[in-house]
Order: sequence, then C-alpha cells, then structure tokens
Amino acid sequence: MNRKNEKNQPITLHPIGILRTPFSQTSGIPRQAVGAMDVQAKIEVYPPFVKGLKDLDGFSHILVLFCFDRAGRTELIANPPWDGNPRGVFSTCSPYRPNHIGMSVVKLVKFEPPALTICGCDMADQTPVLDIKPYLPDLFPREEVKIGWLTNQMKGMTDSKSGRE
Amino acid sequence: MNRKNEKNQPITLHPIGILRTPFSQTSGIPRQAVGAMDVQAKIEVYPPFVKGLKDLDGFSHILVLFCFDRAGRTELIANPPWDGNPRGVFSTCSPYRPNHIGMSVVKLVKFEPPALTICGCDMADQTPVLDIKPYLPDLFPREEVKIGWLTNQMKGMTDSKSGRE
Repeated sequence: MNRKNEKNQPITLHPIGILRTPFSQTSGIPRQAVGAMDVQAKIEVYPPFVKGLKDLDGFSHILVLFCFDRAGRTELIANPPWDGNPRGVFSTCSPYRPNHIGMSVVKLVKFEPPALTICGCDMADQTPVLDIKPYLPDLFPREEVKIGWLTNQMKGMTDSKSGRE
Repeated sequence: MNRKNEKNQPITLHPIGILRTPFSQTSGIPRQAVGAMDVQAKIEVYPPFVKGLKDLDGFSHILVLFCFDRAGRTELIANPPWDGNPRGVFSTCSPYRPNHIGMSVVKLVKFEPPALTICGCDMADQTPVLDIKPYLPDLFPREEVKIGWLTNQMKGMTDSKSGRE
C-alpha cells in the first residue's frame, strides 16, 4: 500500500448530531460566537454517540466542529464585507472554504444528554455537528499573537452578520 | 428534497495539504501543540489551494484542522493514561473520536507558499491537512472558564506523549 498516494484520498465523516438554532436561514447569522453570546441553541447528539458525552458536564465551554452544509461552493479568495479587500480564504472565517468545516467555542449552559444547551450560537438551524471537544484555554496562546490583516478589524467582524445565502 | 433526512448523510472532505513532521510514528508525539513549541514542521499545501494562502503572512499563529488518519477505530470512552479514569471521548482530545479530526494552534514561523513552516507540532508525519484558519485570540474566552475533570490535569496532559499506535 502506497501511503503517499493514499494521502489525497477523500475522507468521509458522519455527523454525530444536529444543531437546533433560531437561524433558519444563513443570512443574518452572527459571524462569530463571541458576537452571539445571548443566542441560545441546542445540540442534539445522535443515539450512537451519546455515551461519548460522559464527563462533559463540569466544562463551562465546549469547542464545536460543524459543517457549513449550505455553503455550496468554494471561493479561494473571500471578500469580507466589512473590509473591502479580497483576502485568501485561509486567512478568513468564510464558510466557502475548500472543506466546509466551521469551529465555534460556545458556552455549555445545560447538560441533558442527548441534548446540550449552548450559548454563543453562530450556526444555522439543522447544521450537522461533526465533533465536540473540551475547551481548554491553556491551549490557546494570548501572548505575542499577531493577527495580520484582521488587526483592528475584530470589532467589524464580530459585530457583523452574514448577508449571503 | 427532504433537508431533514439529508442531515445524516456522510460528508466528504478532500485534504488541502500534508504535514511534514519529525514524527514518523504515532507513538511519542507530544499530546498538545503547547507541549511541542520547539518542534518545527512544514505544511505543504496542494497546488489547487495555494491561492487561498494569500494574506496569511502577518499572522503569528494559525489554527490547523487535520485528520488523525492512523486512528483506525472509534472509542466512545477514552482512557487518558495520566488520569486513570475512563472519560467520555468528547471530554477528551483522544484521536479515537467518531470523526477523526484534530485541531492545533501552531506558530507560523515562515510563509513560503506552498509551504508553511510551523512550530508547535503535535502531528504525525504525512498527516492530511483539512483546513487552515487564522488564529484570533479574541474568539477564545479566558474568563470564567471551567474545565471539568481536566482541572489540575493540564500539566499531565501537555507533558505526556502519545503511547499508542
């Protein structure tokens, strides 16, 4: 088996659950969880995976990986509306990335398996959930971080809402 | 088209690049990027996606999503070796999660498309890269965070190395 050739093979994921959120359309959704801390939603974990939720109570925040399932295309150059300049997609949070994976850190406010009630929802209703990880702030550096073109743009990003389908 | 039924459909991803790291085997790899800040590696982005790297210079850190491609099984209950108690997989960083996706925040030390030199490598050599996102510390809360069973366990986790294939 040639490992090297294998590496370009597609990778198949299966949703572990689904999001129930107030956003039935993709327009008007807050762009980031930090801009949506008042928005409550639910993750419903599918039965085969509920056992894996054990020990998640006690965590105040979780990291959710999900699929931008309504992003039907890829754009290697994104056009953040609050910026006005075309930007390489990997330097943005655009859903139109080559693999439509989103990531949000949200507050875990109620632990009632198979449901998790969360605050800080920036996802569309019925978004497929791919993974839940414990949020461990020590793994996220604060010192000496530079954020390139997004310097002084964070307020524009977190305050804005998605305007496109 | 029944959107609801669609949601259980598998999701297919295509690697956007590959990691070149000093770890040819999965045993002995640091468990977290913060425990591996001296370890240098390279992400080689595949030609169709290189254009999307535009504007990533200027960022000191990037968030890398990758596939634990050598995790050939799923374990809903993990057994972190430094802890001794069985834990629900979603409350751990185990690679044996239902969808084998890993996430690391690493330092971007050299920007030479199609290659990115990074520091803080906790991935095996030839690991498929699924996504690169800008690392924006403001999206990661620090205040009032509780980390459940991992309280006082962070040192054990970040100091330990993977012991299994």
